[in-house]
Amino acid sequence: MNSIGKIACVGAGNIGRAWAMIFARAGYDVALYDTDRSALNRAMTAIRAGLDDQARLGLIEDASAVLRGIRPEPDIDRALNGVRHVQENVYEDIALKRRVFAELDQRAPKDSVIASSVSSIPVSQFMEDLPGSRRCIGAHPVNPPHLVPLVEIVMSPSTSEETYARTAALMEAIGQVPVRLNREIVGYVLNRLQFAIINEALHLVERGYVSAVDCDKIVKHGLGRRWAFMGLFETNHLNASGGIREYYTKFGPTIASMLNELFTTPHPIGPEMIETLAREIEAETPAAQVPARQAWRDRQLAALGRHLAAMADAEKAEKKP
Amino acid sequence: MNSIGKIACVGAGNIGRAWAMIFARAGYDVALYDTDRSALNRAMTAIRAGLDDQARLGLIEDASAVLRGIRPEPDIDRALNGVRHVQENVYEDIALKRRVFAELDQRAPKDSVIASSVSSIPVSQFMEDLPGSRRCIGAHPVNPPHLVPLVEIVMSPSTSEETYARTAALMEAIGQVPVRLNREIVGYVLNRLQFAIINEALHLVERGYVSAVDCDKIVKHGLGRRWAFMGLFETNHLNASGGIREYYTKFGPTIASMLNELFTTPHPIGPEMIETLAREIEAETPAAQVPARQAWRDRQLAALGRHLAAMADAEKAEKKP
Repeated sequence: MNSIGKIACVGAGNIGRAWAMIFARAGYDVALYDTDRSALNRAMTAIRAGLDDQARLGLIEDASAVLRGIRPEPDIDRALNGVRHVQENVYEDIALKRRVFAELDQRAPKDSVIASSVSSIPVSQFMEDLPGSRRCIGAHPVNPPHLVPLVEIVMSPSTSEETYARTAALMEAIGQVPVRLNREIVGYVLNRLQFAIINEALHLVERGYVSAVDCDKIVKHGLGRRWAFMGLFETNHLNASGGIREYYTKFGPTIASMLNELFTTPHPIGPEMIETLAREIEAETPAAQVPARQAWRDRQLAALGRHLAAMADAEKAEKKP
Repeated sequence: MNSIGKIACVGAGNIGRAWAMIFARAGYDVALYDTDRSALNRAMTAIRAGLDDQARLGLIEDASAVLRGIRPEPDIDRALNGVRHVQENVYEDIALKRRVFAELDQRAPKDSVIASSVSSIPVSQFMEDLPGSRRCIGAHPVNPPHLVPLVEIVMSPSTSEETYARTAALMEAIGQVPVRLNREIVGYVLNRLQFAIINEALHLVERGYVSAVDCDKIVKHGLGRRWAFMGLFETNHLNASGGIREYYTKFGPTIASMLNELFTTPHPIGPEMIETLAREIEAETPAAQVPARQAWRDRQLAALGRHLAAMADAEKAEKKP
């Protein structure tokens, strides 16, 4: 495989491995760095298995060729040599992130971008004070990253527009979908949205209006059918012949009064609630079958990704003169 | 087409027409009743076009055969003659619903179920005082009902278990997915969930954290990928190797503290917010192109439904010995 550029993935846990596979399958030359040599060995074993899975799922053609693009590297300077992009994936620990970012900013090529896979710590807390803070940025993937393309690109107050543009372009080049978070916020956007709906669901289940299993059916056979290809607002846009302006002008007052009725208190998610959920959800898939069901989920995600891509391709082909 | 039973659809607006097509395509003999004869004529024209659309989308084989199963009927007694199920679809107006339900309860065969497509009025307000209140129930579809299979079955305090069981079984027989709302609640469950997530999204867009278009991307390329086949809680279940119990035990406190940070105030959805949304969403699909985009949505929904059904069939075939 001809390399189209060099990338360093720092930290060889689950997320670091996933990024290494995503960059390598897009043709990049990836150095996977970890301070722990045995972690690197474990990572390469897991990556080999992961690439075989991806080949079975139809996501890549030649697992061996992709594997050759990933090099385990226990030396930080060799890992960073000549890279255009550094993807950091160390544990979610503020002191550790600070230390690692200080070192990366000191050692990475001056024209490289340093992106963090951070999922909850505000990015400014470990990027702001660095000499190279303008080239530092958040790039938070969704689990599992090789099957769900979205990446939240999080701007720190000092991140430059050039850094944003380069990161977004790179994400698009490797087949991910970048979105821009203009300012950092607790939980970022994806998880805030996810838990806003889950909070309402928890209250409804706890109060006995609906079962957890039926709640899942409402999402998968109802809301999720539309959200899989339209999102929240395009769904509204297409629910009135005049579009979203007509929709919210006409139904805005009714909706606003419904919003008043929602369960706004944060659910404490105590032991009883967890027991209720587990009893119901485990009756569908026992805990012991979770790994097998995760493999099912991955097959579903890969197939859904292919289906949506085929629909988009057919649409593009239609539009051509 | 051999009839497998008689159904009356009362009210020939969009929802009444959709139900007529769904029952007829499943082989039922449908009487479509309206007090307004010209509404019936308009409805039959729209149904003819709708069935042609469904044939093009691959949802039915023979539009003419399905059409023959739908009979416009301006006489209420003839419409109700011999039916096992009445689906009421008149305007969302409490006085009208009361009047129509009183009449239906008086005239429909004693062993028939009377279901309302009501979408926001609490069902008890027009079912409770009737002699036949035990056979009355809510059956709220999702728009467009012939493409999104979910139906919220809403129990009124007096609805009998037999009525629930018969309604749920009928919905399954015609290829819809029933869920049970044990008690009525403002907005029912689907719309409460929909607007809980939209409320958070509106606040995030208004405050400039993210654009409305990127918010849609977060849903369609992130959350929606999982929710299209798993729902909220199974997604959690498969995000920890020990399942949902481990997931919420381990992450519960972090999630509960994030819930504290959500924008809980009901967004007023005023003119400025509507303007912001419209400017962004119309830049993607101008209002004048909404009808064409609705046709695109319907093609996407039909294809997604076929894709998910094929995945489920393949899974069942695998499990067979």
